[in-house]
Amino acid sequence: MTIDRFYPVVPAGGSGTRLWPLSRRDRPKFLFALGGAEASLLQSTVRRLLPLADLSRLLVVTGAAHVAAVREQLPDLPAANLLAEPSPRDSGPAIALAAALARTRDPDAVTGSFAADHLVADVPGFHEAVRTAADVASTGLLVTVGLVPTRPDTGYGYINTGAELGIGTAVRVERFEEKPDQATASSYLASGGYLWNAGMFLWRADALLAEVRRQLPDLYDGVTAIAAAYAHGDGPRVHAQLWPALPRVSIDVGIIEGAAARGQVACVPGDFGWTDIGDWDTLGNVLPADGDGTVALDVDGLLSLDSGHCVVAGSGRSVVLLGVHDLVVVDGGDVVFVCPRERAQDVGAVVRALRDAGRDDLI
Amino acid sequence: MTIDRFYPVVPAGGSGTRLWPLSRRDRPKFLFALGGAEASLLQSTVRRLLPLADLSRLLVVTGAAHVAAVREQLPDLPAANLLAEPSPRDSGPAIALAAALARTRDPDAVTGSFAADHLVADVPGFHEAVRTAADVASTGLLVTVGLVPTRPDTGYGYINTGAELGIGTAVRVERFEEKPDQATASSYLASGGYLWNAGMFLWRADALLAEVRRQLPDLYDGVTAIAAAYAHGDGPRVHAQLWPALPRVSIDVGIIEGAAARGQVACVPGDFGWTDIGDWDTLGNVLPADGDGTVALDVDGLLSLDSGHCVVAGSGRSVVLLGVHDLVVVDGGDVVFVCPRERAQDVGAVVRALRDAGRDDLI
Repeated sequence: MTIDRFYPVVPAGGSGTRLWPLSRRDRPKFLFALGGAEASLLQSTVRRLLPLADLSRLLVVTGAAHVAAVREQLPDLPAANLLAEPSPRDSGPAIALAAALARTRDPDAVTGSFAADHLVADVPGFHEAVRTAADVASTGLLVTVGLVPTRPDTGYGYINTGAELGIGTAVRVERFEEKPDQATASSYLASGGYLWNAGMFLWRADALLAEVRRQLPDLYDGVTAIAAAYAHGDGPRVHAQLWPALPRVSIDVGIIEGAAARGQVACVPGDFGWTDIGDWDTLGNVLPADGDGTVALDVDGLLSLDSGHCVVAGSGRSVVLLGVHDLVVVDGGDVVFVCPRERAQDVGAVVRALRDAGRDDLI
Repeated sequence: MTIDRFYPVVPAGGSGTRLWPLSRRDRPKFLFALGGAEASLLQSTVRRLLPLADLSRLLVVTGAAHVAAVREQLPDLPAANLLAEPSPRDSGPAIALAAALARTRDPDAVTGSFAADHLVADVPGFHEAVRTAADVASTGLLVTVGLVPTRPDTGYGYINTGAELGIGTAVRVERFEEKPDQATASSYLASGGYLWNAGMFLWRADALLAEVRRQLPDLYDGVTAIAAAYAHGDGPRVHAQLWPALPRVSIDVGIIEGAAARGQVACVPGDFGWTDIGDWDTLGNVLPADGDGTVALDVDGLLSLDSGHCVVAGSGRSVVLLGVHDLVVVDGGDVVFVCPRERAQDVGAVVRALRDAGRDDLI
């Protein structure tokens, strides 16, 4: 049973440098099957949403460079539901435009944002949380689905929750907290009043746009004009024309935090095995491991001798480990990458160093 | 100036599993340019010998599987000087046969054995030692060139030297010692009376064959018959027929140790930057390193961040290291191999494990 008037948005963006050298500038991670399934992360995200909304209502937003790849992976998606961003402007303009587009189709539309590169282990649990969030969103509040933290992770932002709202498990959002240090993360976990901010949002399109107009009127005017142009057949031209002047801002910082300060943001707690596969180390924690704790992805035979707890990704070739532990080994086809798992979050530095070295062919 | 009546032999054998996955069953390490030069180890070995003996006198002995590759690398070698072993029977039969072949060409021939996979940094020093060894060999002694040890290496056999012979720097050999443990190796180095056994030998062909006849008469009869057949145009047939019945024995154990016990073996000390490139760790010690101590071989751009003292071999692709030290990383084309340098001597176990796993395609 789909959710009434629900128009989910799947932002499929980001260069995914943290999973380099598998993900590249022109092959972002959402195109890969990293979830232990045959489907790519993008395909899994769409499949997960289909019980909640018909494909005709689902909007995928991606970079111009990835349109062809997305179309290939989602052949049944109506062409009008695949939106190409002329250039990256962070999440604010993309999500505001998605709301404006939904509003042109249905003034009472509820939209929601679901990143294309997240993993969900418990899909029924996800559905239940989203349905509750949609109920709350129908009241006019901006709603985020916050994840019950399972460890004091310093890689996520946190949501400080407040009083119950009386709609299912929904609570008010007091504040959004930046990524904490280890001690702060532990205190969040101990207090019980904090959830992970997964960037998963639902709202009435008009409720979000009212906040956009209040906080960022230029952005409001821009996305309203672009959405109107799409409704009248001149979308791509106007989109390309107005887009570069829109403020480059994340939806969190640009809109949601300001709305939270006014008591306009609610949160529905979710506990459905969510992961954002941020880096190779996370991937190693999430995917099924072999007997010695090593996770292997697309490897034609991994031989692991006196080794363990590694993350290995191939390009269909073989990998042999001897006497190594907690190591990331990625055969990216044209480049082999090795680092300790504890350095996995520094892969961005590798990509920057390659750029500085003029090796654009590898990034 | 070449050495009179000198017929050097280059045994180009061994599967070279310790440099797997670069070297393979059908691509042994002597075919590769591992010396930091353009030339392969085999080509470098032959070039190093040419000032001492004309190419027409140089004999290369290799496995039947490698004849084509050797011919390609040594196009100027006369066809008759490339001897294919029907099957591996250790070094004893090969070197005894080489002596028998030289004797059919010149009853006063001096032959010498120079492995195809060794590195020599100081070539004039090598020439000087070999010339001295040839002088000593002309007296009828079996002569080995022993290397002045530069560290208490436990990977080499040692030569216990005795009294001076009065010919250049030559000394008598008291005993050959097996690979020692660390304490023994250190005591050898401290005593000053020990040299590394590099398996580098010179002798009059008839002197070696007299020892072969005395100690292993069946081997003597076999190689004499095979050599006679080669001299009369029926070599390959008789070689293939008699070879499998010859004793499988190393020249050291089968002949030289017994001769040393009778005082028939001399040694010329050499100090010319010799290495046998036994494994990846040795290679890392021998080849020129970059600023952080890492050695890279056939890598299309090595990016090394917070890393050092690694040994990296590519297959023309790129390698990126982040935060790793003392690691061996080899892109073997169809397989990526990673191990700590201190495990480099265990690569043989990898090859055996791959064989057990039915992955003959990788060995």
